Amino acid sequence: MSNDPLVVFTPSGKRGRFPAGTPVLTAARQLGVDLDSVCGGRGICSKCQITPSYGEFAKHGVTVQDGALSEWNKVEQRYKDKRGLIDGRRLGCQAKIETDVVIDVPPESQVHKQVVRKRAEARDIVMNPSIRLVYVDVEEPDMHKPTGDLERLCEALETQWDIKGVKSDLHILRSLQPALRKGAWKVTVALHLGAGELAPRIMHIWPGYYEGTVYGIAIDLGSTTIAAHLCDLKSGEVVASSGIMNPQIRFGEDLMSRVSYSMMNKGGDLEMTRTVREGLNTLFSQIATEAEIDQTLIMDAVFVCNPVMHHLLIGIDPFELGQAPFALATANSLALDARDLDLNLHPAARIYLLPCIAGHVGADAAAVALSEAPDKSEDLVLVVDVGTNAEILLGNKDRVLACSSPTGPAFEGAQISSGQRAAPGAIERVEINPETKEPRFRVIGSDIWSDEQGFAESIATTGISGICGSGIIEVIAEMRLAGLLDASGLIGSAEQTGSARCVPEGRTHAYLLWDGTAEGGPRITVTNPDIRAIQMAKAALYSGARLLMDKIGVDTVDRVVLAGAFGAHISAKHAMVLGMIPDCPLEKVTSAGNAAGTGARIALLNTDARREIEQTVREIEKIETAVEPRFQEHFVNASAIPNAIEPFPILKSIVTLPDVSFNAGGGDGEAGGGRRRRRRG
Amino acid sequence: MSNDPLVVFTPSGKRGRFPAGTPVLTAARQLGVDLDSVCGGRGICSKCQITPSYGEFAKHGVTVQDGALSEWNKVEQRYKDKRGLIDGRRLGCQAKIETDVVIDVPPESQVHKQVVRKRAEARDIVMNPSIRLVYVDVEEPDMHKPTGDLERLCEALETQWDIKGVKSDLHILRSLQPALRKGAWKVTVALHLGAGELAPRIMHIWPGYYEGTVYGIAIDLGSTTIAAHLCDLKSGEVVASSGIMNPQIRFGEDLMSRVSYSMMNKGGDLEMTRTVREGLNTLFSQIATEAEIDQTLIMDAVFVCNPVMHHLLIGIDPFELGQAPFALATANSLALDARDLDLNLHPAARIYLLPCIAGHVGADAAAVALSEAPDKSEDLVLVVDVGTNAEILLGNKDRVLACSSPTGPAFEGAQISSGQRAAPGAIERVEINPETKEPRFRVIGSDIWSDEQGFAESIATTGISGICGSGIIEVIAEMRLAGLLDASGLIGSAEQTGSARCVPEGRTHAYLLWDGTAEGGPRITVTNPDIRAIQMAKAALYSGARLLMDKIGVDTVDRVVLAGAFGAHISAKHAMVLGMIPDCPLEKVTSAGNAAGTGARIALLNTDARREIEQTVREIEKIETAVEPRFQEHFVNASAIPNAIEPFPILKSIVTLPDVSFNAGGGDGEAGGGRRRRRRG
Repeated sequence: MSNDPLVVFTPSGKRGRFPAGTPVLTAARQLGVDLDSVCGGRGICSKCQITPSYGEFAKHGVTVQDGALSEWNKVEQRYKDKRGLIDGRRLGCQAKIETDVVIDVPPESQVHKQVVRKRAEARDIVMNPSIRLVYVDVEEPDMHKPTGDLERLCEALETQWDIKGVKSDLHILRSLQPALRKGAWKVTVALHLGAGELAPRIMHIWPGYYEGTVYGIAIDLGSTTIAAHLCDLKSGEVVASSGIMNPQIRFGEDLMSRVSYSMMNKGGDLEMTRTVREGLNTLFSQIATEAEIDQTLIMDAVFVCNPVMHHLLIGIDPFELGQAPFALATANSLALDARDLDLNLHPAARIYLLPCIAGHVGADAAAVALSEAPDKSEDLVLVVDVGTNAEILLGNKDRVLACSSPTGPAFEGAQISSGQRAAPGAIERVEINPETKEPRFRVIGSDIWSDEQGFAESIATTGISGICGSGIIEVIAEMRLAGLLDASGLIGSAEQTGSARCVPEGRTHAYLLWDGTAEGGPRITVTNPDIRAIQMAKAALYSGARLLMDKIGVDTVDRVVLAGAFGAHISAKHAMVLGMIPDCPLEKVTSAGNAAGTGARIALLNTDARREIEQTVREIEKIETAVEPRFQEHFVNASAIPNAIEPFPILKSIVTLPDVSFNAGGGDGEAGGGRRRRRRG
Repeated sequence: MSNDPLVVFTPSGKRGRFPAGTPVLTAARQLGVDLDSVCGGRGICSKCQITPSYGEFAKHGVTVQDGALSEWNKVEQRYKDKRGLIDGRRLGCQAKIETDVVIDVPPESQVHKQVVRKRAEARDIVMNPSIRLVYVDVEEPDMHKPTGDLERLCEALETQWDIKGVKSDLHILRSLQPALRKGAWKVTVALHLGAGELAPRIMHIWPGYYEGTVYGIAIDLGSTTIAAHLCDLKSGEVVASSGIMNPQIRFGEDLMSRVSYSMMNKGGDLEMTRTVREGLNTLFSQIATEAEIDQTLIMDAVFVCNPVMHHLLIGIDPFELGQAPFALATANSLALDARDLDLNLHPAARIYLLPCIAGHVGADAAAVALSEAPDKSEDLVLVVDVGTNAEILLGNKDRVLACSSPTGPAFEGAQISSGQRAAPGAIERVEINPETKEPRFRVIGSDIWSDEQGFAESIATTGISGICGSGIIEVIAEMRLAGLLDASGLIGSAEQTGSARCVPEGRTHAYLLWDGTAEGGPRITVTNPDIRAIQMAKAALYSGARLLMDKIGVDTVDRVVLAGAFGAHISAKHAMVLGMIPDCPLEKVTSAGNAAGTGARIALLNTDARREIEQTVREIEKIETAVEPRFQEHFVNASAIPNAIEPFPILKSIVTLPDVSFNAGGGDGEAGGGRRRRRRG
């Protein structure tokens, strides 16, 4: 056994013996310990800070004496005097191992540090971004060996960092020569490390040592809104989040109206492409201003979006996505240059688009799969991303199936007589007393229920303006529970229900939720056509999920994850009363928030995750609901509230669903929608 | 031994046995015979035409009987009826081998056909262009297997053509879906085959079978002129050649004045970059109009140029090239997108720039090396590309050295009192009678000598306007041979020479070549400052060559190749009298014409040649004349005509150099330039 000092790194537990005088950074590298360095051991960057521990370590079989690390040398002392170091910390590149020692690598000194996510059940993100900063010494030019400055820089990257085959963006070459000379042949280089067949690429060059960081942006490009998270590519931290309405809305509210805009107007697709790119540039300025950073420090961007937005973003006419067989121009992930999309980020910024799963199941669904990882789940999980289209994933570590289902915009408050987007003044929570049939509700912007003291004051500025998506789910479910609504979706009359709030409206009835007319406000009712719109939407959602359950051969799922902004506000109980989601213990229904956005952020911060989701998407079994005969059957059954044939035993053990019927004829009501067919496009 | 029929292909001589019924194309592929096909054996493209030979072939040991190939099938017959086939020709993909047969592959059916060059000593170009057209059947989309159209196209390229890992340009994706549908899932694809780390890339998609060809352009981007050859990438044929003046001339005639324009004017380099790109776009329109082709069919372009033009083309400030150590931003070859240089070719067109050899020895010198291949020469060859800078290569298959030498613009007629560019009216050939000292000359635009009948009429439209570069070489050499000029470069007086044409001019004399003043024309003289300018230029050229000879350790070279437009018109004898080039048998001095342009054309038509010249350039030994002490010594010696110390024995066996001296003081004349120093920049 060697007499060389033993060094033990924590938390990795990696250990080895090194000759006395070996710098800690060198030992860490040889052992494969994750210890960061930008300056390559020159005592400049301080990324390699470590904490030696002294005393008896029975666990490691080591006694660490004072003097286990070398005295502070000039470089280290100068760094401490000038910039300061946390007590007990040393620079790993300067401190040398003298005798046995235990060395802790704090999280901020790890390259692959973990970014902790707020949700308990969510996995953490391990940092492995596409951009890396390195500091190099470049050989000066020599007339007798006339190589280019770029070639000598690449040589330095290879010899000093073992990064081979580096390419440079043409645009970057312009700044190369001035930077090398200004930095006295020492420069910091931002490298895009590439992936697969791509070579590492020089993104930026700073003279000398660059102390700053670089940024990436994760973008969830929705048909209605565009949301972005700006992330520090070093720490993984979200430094700003921002969103705008998708300016394409002026060409049509939903995807199909945009596809038809392109069909009806020559060059319409290009117009929409231009518009969304302009919107993105507005968003980029906005978020950079908010974070107080230079927009050109954003060097990497990840996009998730549905297939139509995907094609419009990259400049492809979405025509084929509007008709069977819904052929994508390209389904694979794309690695592009931001400038080719006219996006105002760093001039060499890269763009990564997650792969699309199918013609209706886009990169947004792939991002949900990356975030929620059904393919790693032990139990059978149903993941539903509710938007204008619902993307549905069902599976576990053995297999994952995906489909999309055209729910339409009803869940977002559209097509609802008093519906509105979730905004202050919108009713978001509703309870109806099953005895009195009287409602109480809460409004966005206030925590007070409408029957509690102080309610009027709390909504003085917003008023009560309408019902948002989660509110409409709750009020309809509560109406069903209160016996105001039958299973077929008919609202009873005042006589049938004993409530004066059930008022006639045309040939059917409506439930009066709030009458604000006395104060000049709206009269908010839930009409039978509102019920029908929600029935259609929820039937589409449920039947998609049910179809996947058929394919796997199960009648129940172990848990349900609701993704999307809407899913974050929805009440599991009410959703289940409506029969939106399969019967399941309520505590097994969780919200993942904006899982697509989270998936984008994971792909931004960890390039391995990009390879992972590309592989996952290849393996996901794609189901096209439009051509599945059982989809129609499930749809018909799911039009009932909660369902015409599914028993929902868990739900029925929690709530009582009054067995009422308000159909004058006693048979299938017109609201049941049983014979109605719903088609895409 | 198998009883299968024997097939022998000519001219390759490849042979093998195949089961009866094997298509000729299949046999050719299995034997590695170079037989073209675009449609992949579908009887559409007719690129695989072959000629069977019948009878007794003792050489091959084969007797070919009638019926050795199968009868004409429907596809082949239909092709012949519709499009016609040369008598005796068959389609290799349709005709099947039945019994022993000898099959000739005509040159036009070979992929790697040779493009014959006019010069006897030049090697032929073997076709191997970067762009390949292939016809594929693409699988239709299927909702149950929702892959993208691009992914299915790539799959077809892999299964039908064994071309793997194909990438598509973003811009091309737009045309993919319409083309596939218009062509009923059959398309012709133009593929850039890539090289090295680059993946094959889809450049263009045509619905169905595309019968046309695609083009490439080879560009010699000089400081003064830009010349281009438009080539058919299938046949290799030059379909049009064109040239324009480099519009950058307005920023300075020579390279150094352009570098200083950039130093003196902020953004001046970008202005020059914009200007040269605009000039190129003008040239592209011009050449496409001349060839009557669609400009967007130009999919590949190769550039050769000196380092300053190289940097200005790609948008790099040439500042560093104006001062020691003359550091290039990048020396390696570059593969770029035309659109990144704002060049109006095909939207996905690729650009290839040959590597630079050194800070003064550019991609144009590399192109000369590719064309003249000193590295493949058995004998020691000196290759000189004469322009504003002379690029000089010396070597053989063992080693090649390169340098550049700042000759200045005198050889192009600049700095010469009656100098002009080579254009109609310019004196290009001169003879002086050694007895009478009377000159006769020829003018560009006329074949008649000035002392012959009909001369006056033949120049009636052009007149006599000045002396071009080759004319000034000849007149000075003739003056030296006629004893009007001494070895130090002094012109004698009328008394000293006995010629009234030697007239005083300031403190020295001039030789009157032509007096057109009576007819309102110019008075054309060769002045002593003209002689000095040429002395400087030729001394720079010779001393560069001599320096390389020192490095190799020789006093003579086996042959001299003069490249460049100027080199094409120069008289070997006169150049040697001046001592421009080393002493050498006159018949060993040849002109290579625009060798840089030819090198560009070779690189355009054969991608292997790109790899070859990249390798050659790495191996060439670069000599920087500015820091070589012996350069100054050689320069001083070479200022004399022909040379102060070199004996030039071969020259002296052909001509007599009068031993005259016109220096009044008898010592070193001021014109000798012996103590003058010449520096770059």
